[in-house]
Amino acid sequence: MQFYQDGYRPGDPDIRPAAPGRRAPGTFPEQVDVLIAGTGPAGSVLAAQLAEFPDISTLVVERREAALELGHADGVACRTVEMFNGFGLAERLMREAYWVNETSFWGPDSADGIARTGRIQDVADGLSEYPHVIVNQARMQDLLLEHMANSPSRLVPDYGLELIDVSVAETGDHPVTATLRRTGAEPGADITVAAKYAVGCEGARSNVRRSLGIKMQGDARNHAWGVMDMLAVTDFPDIRLKSAIQSASGGSILLIPREGGYLVRLYVDLGDIDPGDREARGRFTADSVIEAAQKILHPYTLDVKEIAWWSVYEVGQRIAERFDDVLPEDRGTRTPRVFIAGDACHTHSAKAGQGMNVSMQDGFNLGWKLAAVLQGRSPEALLDTYSEERQVIAQELIDFDLKWSTAMAAKPKDPANPDAGGMDAAERQGIFTQGGRFTAGFATDYRPGMITGEGTHEHLASGFPVGERFHSSPVIRLADAKPLQLGHQALADGRWRIYVFADAARPDAADSRLAALCTFLAEAPSSPVCSFTPAGVDDDAVFDVRAVLQQHHRDVEPGDVPAFLLPRRAPLGLIDYEKVFTADAANDIFAARGIDRELGAIVVVRPDQYVAHVLPLDAHAELAAFFAGIMRAPALV
Amino acid sequence: MQFYQDGYRPGDPDIRPAAPGRRAPGTFPEQVDVLIAGTGPAGSVLAAQLAEFPDISTLVVERREAALELGHADGVACRTVEMFNGFGLAERLMREAYWVNETSFWGPDSADGIARTGRIQDVADGLSEYPHVIVNQARMQDLLLEHMANSPSRLVPDYGLELIDVSVAETGDHPVTATLRRTGAEPGADITVAAKYAVGCEGARSNVRRSLGIKMQGDARNHAWGVMDMLAVTDFPDIRLKSAIQSASGGSILLIPREGGYLVRLYVDLGDIDPGDREARGRFTADSVIEAAQKILHPYTLDVKEIAWWSVYEVGQRIAERFDDVLPEDRGTRTPRVFIAGDACHTHSAKAGQGMNVSMQDGFNLGWKLAAVLQGRSPEALLDTYSEERQVIAQELIDFDLKWSTAMAAKPKDPANPDAGGMDAAERQGIFTQGGRFTAGFATDYRPGMITGEGTHEHLASGFPVGERFHSSPVIRLADAKPLQLGHQALADGRWRIYVFADAARPDAADSRLAALCTFLAEAPSSPVCSFTPAGVDDDAVFDVRAVLQQHHRDVEPGDVPAFLLPRRAPLGLIDYEKVFTADAANDIFAARGIDRELGAIVVVRPDQYVAHVLPLDAHAELAAFFAGIMRAPALV
Ligand SMILES: Cc1cc2nc3c(=O)[nH]c(=O)nc-3n(C[C@H](O)[C@H](O)[C@H](O)COP(=O)(O)OP(=O)(O)OC[C@H]3O[C@@H](n4cnc5c(N)ncnc54)[C@H](O)[C@@H]3O)c2cc1C
Ligand SMILES: Cc1cc2nc3c(=O)[nH]c(=O)nc-3n(C[C@H](O)[C@H](O)[C@H](O)COP(=O)(O)OP(=O)(O)OC[C@H]3O[C@@H](n4cnc5c(N)ncnc54)[C@H](O)[C@@H]3O)c2cc1C
Repeated sequence: MQFYQDGYRPGDPDIRPAAPGRRAPGTFPEQVDVLIAGTGPAGSVLAAQLAEFPDISTLVVERREAALELGHADGVACRTVEMFNGFGLAERLMREAYWVNETSFWGPDSADGIARTGRIQDVADGLSEYPHVIVNQARMQDLLLEHMANSPSRLVPDYGLELIDVSVAETGDHPVTATLRRTGAEPGADITVAAKYAVGCEGARSNVRRSLGIKMQGDARNHAWGVMDMLAVTDFPDIRLKSAIQSASGGSILLIPREGGYLVRLYVDLGDIDPGDREARGRFTADSVIEAAQKILHPYTLDVKEIAWWSVYEVGQRIAERFDDVLPEDRGTRTPRVFIAGDACHTHSAKAGQGMNVSMQDGFNLGWKLAAVLQGRSPEALLDTYSEERQVIAQELIDFDLKWSTAMAAKPKDPANPDAGGMDAAERQGIFTQGGRFTAGFATDYRPGMITGEGTHEHLASGFPVGERFHSSPVIRLADAKPLQLGHQALADGRWRIYVFADAARPDAADSRLAALCTFLAEAPSSPVCSFTPAGVDDDAVFDVRAVLQQHHRDVEPGDVPAFLLPRRAPLGLIDYEKVFTADAANDIFAARGIDRELGAIVVVRPDQYVAHVLPLDAHAELAAFFAGIMRAPALV
Repeated sequence: MQFYQDGYRPGDPDIRPAAPGRRAPGTFPEQVDVLIAGTGPAGSVLAAQLAEFPDISTLVVERREAALELGHADGVACRTVEMFNGFGLAERLMREAYWVNETSFWGPDSADGIARTGRIQDVADGLSEYPHVIVNQARMQDLLLEHMANSPSRLVPDYGLELIDVSVAETGDHPVTATLRRTGAEPGADITVAAKYAVGCEGARSNVRRSLGIKMQGDARNHAWGVMDMLAVTDFPDIRLKSAIQSASGGSILLIPREGGYLVRLYVDLGDIDPGDREARGRFTADSVIEAAQKILHPYTLDVKEIAWWSVYEVGQRIAERFDDVLPEDRGTRTPRVFIAGDACHTHSAKAGQGMNVSMQDGFNLGWKLAAVLQGRSPEALLDTYSEERQVIAQELIDFDLKWSTAMAAKPKDPANPDAGGMDAAERQGIFTQGGRFTAGFATDYRPGMITGEGTHEHLASGFPVGERFHSSPVIRLADAKPLQLGHQALADGRWRIYVFADAARPDAADSRLAALCTFLAEAPSSPVCSFTPAGVDDDAVFDVRAVLQQHHRDVEPGDVPAFLLPRRAPLGLIDYEKVFTADAANDIFAARGIDRELGAIVVVRPDQYVAHVLPLDAHAELAAFFAGIMRAPALV
């Protein structure tokens, strides 16, 4: 954590100084930069990201009267924990959450009961330095809301306000008009807000989506699952392990242990329901869900002491035909003004634990782009990449979920009658293992385009595939010899990261390519740093350049590295010593991530932690060209 | 973290449900169980500990108008981080603090400047799983105060109240009478509070100490150090490393990098002053301290941009002749009613970074004892062990500090004139390395007595020396396969821990000594659990028994362990699955802590994390006898 750069101040460093010019308490804006509807996972991440920028006015409306307290999703993929680290929340999340260390599989035994068929490590070694965890969606949102409230813009949602519809004018600075309505007993007159951009994060029944006339495509719902968070007493031995259980009768349970050591969630298969039967859901009761669970768990007992939350969940695999207000035929001719994110764009089963995670990544993908465009750092075309990128991901999710939920719901193969279909335990466990990268959140691989380079130079850093998330690895910080994770130094602050993995030469040697690159970045008129960093802000306000050396940390001193890597901080001119790292001999990042030791490499990472480009250290012109397509020269003041 | 055992509730699990019957807002008590004066390190830890027990009424008075914001100590020993884990605060502390990874040493160079003479790892490998960190004392207190406020008793200090004096009557339930005075402009009439116990944590000028007529023994102050927290620009290469710097002129600096990446503290040697000269301190100015620092750092520059805090610090090594109100000749005839802790008992230089740490350990040592006596779990004689134990520690601290600060202040040896005295760089570095265990907080070794057994069976668990702090090691939790630190499961909740390291047999084997011990603990009338756990509370309310098995965690199921290790939780009867662990093959605790694999061992650990006893698994009678001397049978209701 870095703080006090603008002077010492007492108190909690996570509560950052409030910026001036915020909305006065008790007032309501007529006009904002961004309107966000909904504080679910998508909306909370998006709002937390925009809260970083107090010069952007953001209005967050939420239909509920207060923050969510119960239920909904609970699976937190490793990738989401990585993102939470960007908001400074990973430690708290990990402390409080259940950790999914192993997953067990149960199938019918030879008698009338169930028996364990396998038990495997949940997340493969080396996939992430963070665990797969489980915690109530409400707590995930709480942490993000707290972060927003402590951010420079002190952003808090406006509860009890429903977005009714949006429309987009063809011209104007604030072309989006949104109609809002109070949800209380006396809603009063509708409220109109004008916005530069609006984002519908209102979940599966999005009014923004409806206003834009965007259709959902895909399967109707026809399979019902009871989901129940309970405090229970059982003799089922794996009650504290994530367990996929299939009984002989064909019923199945996905058992998810929960935070705190006592709570457990069961997803209980309630069988197919007629898609036309709108009353079907209402016929299930808590007792019927428990009874179904007890039957599946037999001969083990389940004595439910308290139901914390329950619901019947029946969702097919559906995806929105578009993720913004630009019709396919208009793409490129106008800038998108309204977006949808999260369940508003894609719904699917809860089985692979993706709902909250993918929705949060939607918000994370969109947040920095909106900020960059609103702050004039990037052209409006950047906003087209949101739909471009996330629609592919959503489609992959839908496809994966179909395969996955089919496997989870498949009847066990009958050994006496193998041709009658069904799935045996080994096959199901195999699908689980294969899907590990996906469920952990690491299957995202953005394609080459405006913000993702071609993988031409990928061999220089083969462990950082272009388009995938930047996979952290341990390093030693030069100035204070602290062992830390390189990736964890990147905050969700909207900045681009340029990681400079040094060539073999010492940084103070005449032939150091690292030094040459720093000279280019610091001085060349064509350097992205010089071209796109406005006057009057810190040198690293737009590009956060960090270097990793190959020398032992005791063999180099801060004075040996280019001054560019020791930037000064306004207003006091203090030196930032946290830009330079060395490989940790015990866990060498050059080896772990396949970085060319002779040549080194530049690894460009987007503000949302995805690798945008890998380049040779001397590819100065290519680096400049890449950013020329993404960034905008600051307006002269 | 464990929570929801008494039913689900939304929100932050660190904010525990408030207990009933707390003091009403706006009221002031006439009578309390414990009165604490001062919210420095000693008082905050003591108060945080007592806040765990809402049935104990605690009044905390603090002379300041609000919590401390600036300055004072900043060194946080590994041992203190371990203790903070007991309060659930280690993660936050580590996130925010500077980590002391290495220490560098500087001496005069051949020219007129300074040169690095050595650079070493600060904390030896394996000493603790926690780092040595640096953070403002105010933040340490903030974290503890927040913990108190979120505890079941919702304890908050009463600011602006000075304790003037205390007296102790010979009889009565609340024999301590304390006089308090408001510190504001209009103090009004003095306030009198009656207490069962009072603790003076008011620092070096303790009124409690004065009231009790306790004298300080030891050296007068005669060496002055300027201490300054600054934001500065320098070309000194080790500005982000803890550095001990000696210049040719004899001046010296101890440089401590601080939290946040920019702040730095310098302790600057200001030379000897005449102990009789009461004005000496006032003659130093911030400029004179900076000037002295600049001279010592020459040829490196130091450009101070902002002074966050500064002070002149001149403290000799002094220790109180007693730590409570019982005169030596009366010891054993009456129970102590008033205690002093922290700087009120011992003052010394700041050089070894012990002031805050030892004071906190004083508070931690006293807290659980007061709670145990007040709750009737232990006889009053337990309170005598506070002085008995902590006075020895304080004396060791004073002795160590004298050696240490002499070394830090010693003039460099003149190679041309070695017999003229002084200390060479290697010798100084050697003293530093030898002192590592002490400065990290691990030299404490309580002697055999009422609460510390003889080390007769120490060979069964040679890595847990009796009297030293329980040195954590990794294990795997059986029920959920979570890798974790065994020691970190112990909260600062006043409970005794009985760690049962299993013999080689399976826990469900007929010859399992672990199982036999559990049967004894669960059933025998002489078992400490049966004898000393009151009716109507959870079985582990007084003794927290945890087992570590030798089998692989996939080879044992929760149902294989004695039911005693799966205790039920009131009110719902839920099962606690977090009592049983297995060795982690990658980091075997039996090997790491020298535990006899054939016989296993019982390791008894005090509520303040010190090893109280090591016993064979079948030493049932010895275990019972040990606790018979410490505990009291609950009163029949
Ligand atoms: C009842 C329910 C149960 C679920 N159970 C599970 C589960 O068991 N497991 C699982 O993995 N996933 C579950 N999900 C799915 C998972 O919660 C979603 O995938 C995830 O929350 C999607 O995040 P989101 O931000 O897109 O939308 P949501 O989480 O749905 O959030 C939308 C937010 O917008 C608000 N809102 C809605 N309309 C408006 C409006 N017009 N104006 C203003 N605010 C509005 C809502 O109150 C809500 O706060 C469940 C979802 C729901 C709704
Ligand atoms: C000014 C100062 C500077 C220091 N600088 C350093 C340093 O640079 N490095 C270092 O390692 N150590 C330093 N120390 C020492 C270190 O802070 C102490 O060792 C440590 O704080 C001792 O903790 P404590 O709780 O015993 O007492 P203190 O921290 O002194 O706390 C005592 C508390 O009691 C309050 N109080 C005092 N009298 C009364 C009363 N009569 N009634 C009610 N409340 C009262 C005080 O306001 C204070 O909050 C410094 C101490 C002081 C006082």
